[in-house]
Amino acid sequence: MKHKNMHKHEKVEDENLFEGRNAVLELLNAEKTIHRLFIKDGEAQGSLKVIFAKAKERGIPVTFCPKDKLDKMSETGKHQGVIALCPPFEYASLTQVLRDCAAKSEEPFLIILDKIFDPHNFGAIIRTAMAAGAHGVIIPKRRSVGITSAVVRASAGAAGHLPIIRVSNISQAMDAMKKSGIWMVGAETDGEIIYDAPLSGPIALIIGNESEGLSRLVKEKCDFLVSIPMIGSLASLNASVAAGVAMYEVVRRRMYGLR
Amino acid sequence: MKHKNMHKHEKVEDENLFEGRNAVLELLNAEKTIHRLFIKDGEAQGSLKVIFAKAKERGIPVTFCPKDKLDKMSETGKHQGVIALCPPFEYASLTQVLRDCAAKSEEPFLIILDKIFDPHNFGAIIRTAMAAGAHGVIIPKRRSVGITSAVVRASAGAAGHLPIIRVSNISQAMDAMKKSGIWMVGAETDGEIIYDAPLSGPIALIIGNESEGLSRLVKEKCDFLVSIPMIGSLASLNASVAAGVAMYEVVRRRMYGLR
Repeated sequence: MKHKNMHKHEKVEDENLFEGRNAVLELLNAEKTIHRLFIKDGEAQGSLKVIFAKAKERGIPVTFCPKDKLDKMSETGKHQGVIALCPPFEYASLTQVLRDCAAKSEEPFLIILDKIFDPHNFGAIIRTAMAAGAHGVIIPKRRSVGITSAVVRASAGAAGHLPIIRVSNISQAMDAMKKSGIWMVGAETDGEIIYDAPLSGPIALIIGNESEGLSRLVKEKCDFLVSIPMIGSLASLNASVAAGVAMYEVVRRRMYGLR
Repeated sequence: MKHKNMHKHEKVEDENLFEGRNAVLELLNAEKTIHRLFIKDGEAQGSLKVIFAKAKERGIPVTFCPKDKLDKMSETGKHQGVIALCPPFEYASLTQVLRDCAAKSEEPFLIILDKIFDPHNFGAIIRTAMAAGAHGVIIPKRRSVGITSAVVRASAGAAGHLPIIRVSNISQAMDAMKKSGIWMVGAETDGEIIYDAPLSGPIALIIGNESEGLSRLVKEKCDFLVSIPMIGSLASLNASVAAGVAMYEVVRRRMYGLR
């Protein structure tokens, strides 16, 4: 999207496959660079037809090939008749995202993901972050999935629009953000009830993984911890649902100018 | 669970397979009836060892068999070395759930799912409903997935604890609930912002599917419609995340005695 093009980007990995109709359509709609499209042989119908038309319009080379060639290329096994060969995913830089917030006079609202390995949760969190108006999602270079086709699909394409920032070290990045006046709010089962916690001002919400929660170091760097109340006994929330509930509490406060 | 045993149950289908370690462990922990366990040959380790011990304790017959037999039995392809053969899933009755609410002097909080086909979303919604203290989840007999292994797994076992009610006709069930004084609140993109809507009192939250939203008939039966604000442009939410945000707004109001 437009705001992505303004960022300096780090280059990582060599080439990226995007698979499946929705993922490829989103790439086309977001006017992302696509080196080549592979579409299964035969008359393109439905969304494949739309994809082919859009690719032609943008001058993207298209190779028609038999389904079993696509099966072999596929990393997810769910190509739905189309695979796009793209340049490596372009991560955004934290400095630039913060500069963009300043330029728009918006208080930063960032999501930090500590050790999210499940591509569906990761994608759903990116999608929710975009809906909640967050400015970007920060992930560690190690101990996280990257932006794969499965993530893009689960994000319903949001991964092509929202700045995703990869940092070498989450706790160092937290220090840098704290220096910029951003509050570090960790989501943890033993935190203060989120509805009672102050959430105004520039904020980064840190989400851990389901089984282990936040890492010790990350937890120590948090200004405070918040938790989502569990009413049913023995209950728990899926990481992406918990992230959604927490993000939307920030949205609610911001909408109504509440602390 | 205990509260399930008090319900009158409808019997459906013949026999149910539950697959995967967490799903089977949850069945054992919830003291559900299991006709037989199939565990893969070889020394049981980790959670399989725990499963075997619990089964032995409860006198459940265990058959050890080669992995390829489990592969053949498996409906999901993700048995993780264990499959449980159970009686058909026991759905709860709406009348009984409402009676239980009355007995506990609790205002009903129900979730109605209109055409949810994705087992992951369905499971995550059941899990969230339990965490949010809802009294039950209502699904239509047709146009919905039933309680399969995939749903139980995605629900992190909540499907074995929370009453699930199947009705022949969602809009008739809505009429019946309205007569009991329950407000029908539909989640729709063109509804009133949920934070401005009245959510106190007995309530049923109706969630549609991602692509089509609520059916026309169901929408017409709603007392009012609420929507989750989309801050980012072109953004949308996953059905289970949207359901979570909406349910937790009800939780927040109830916790603080707000309208």
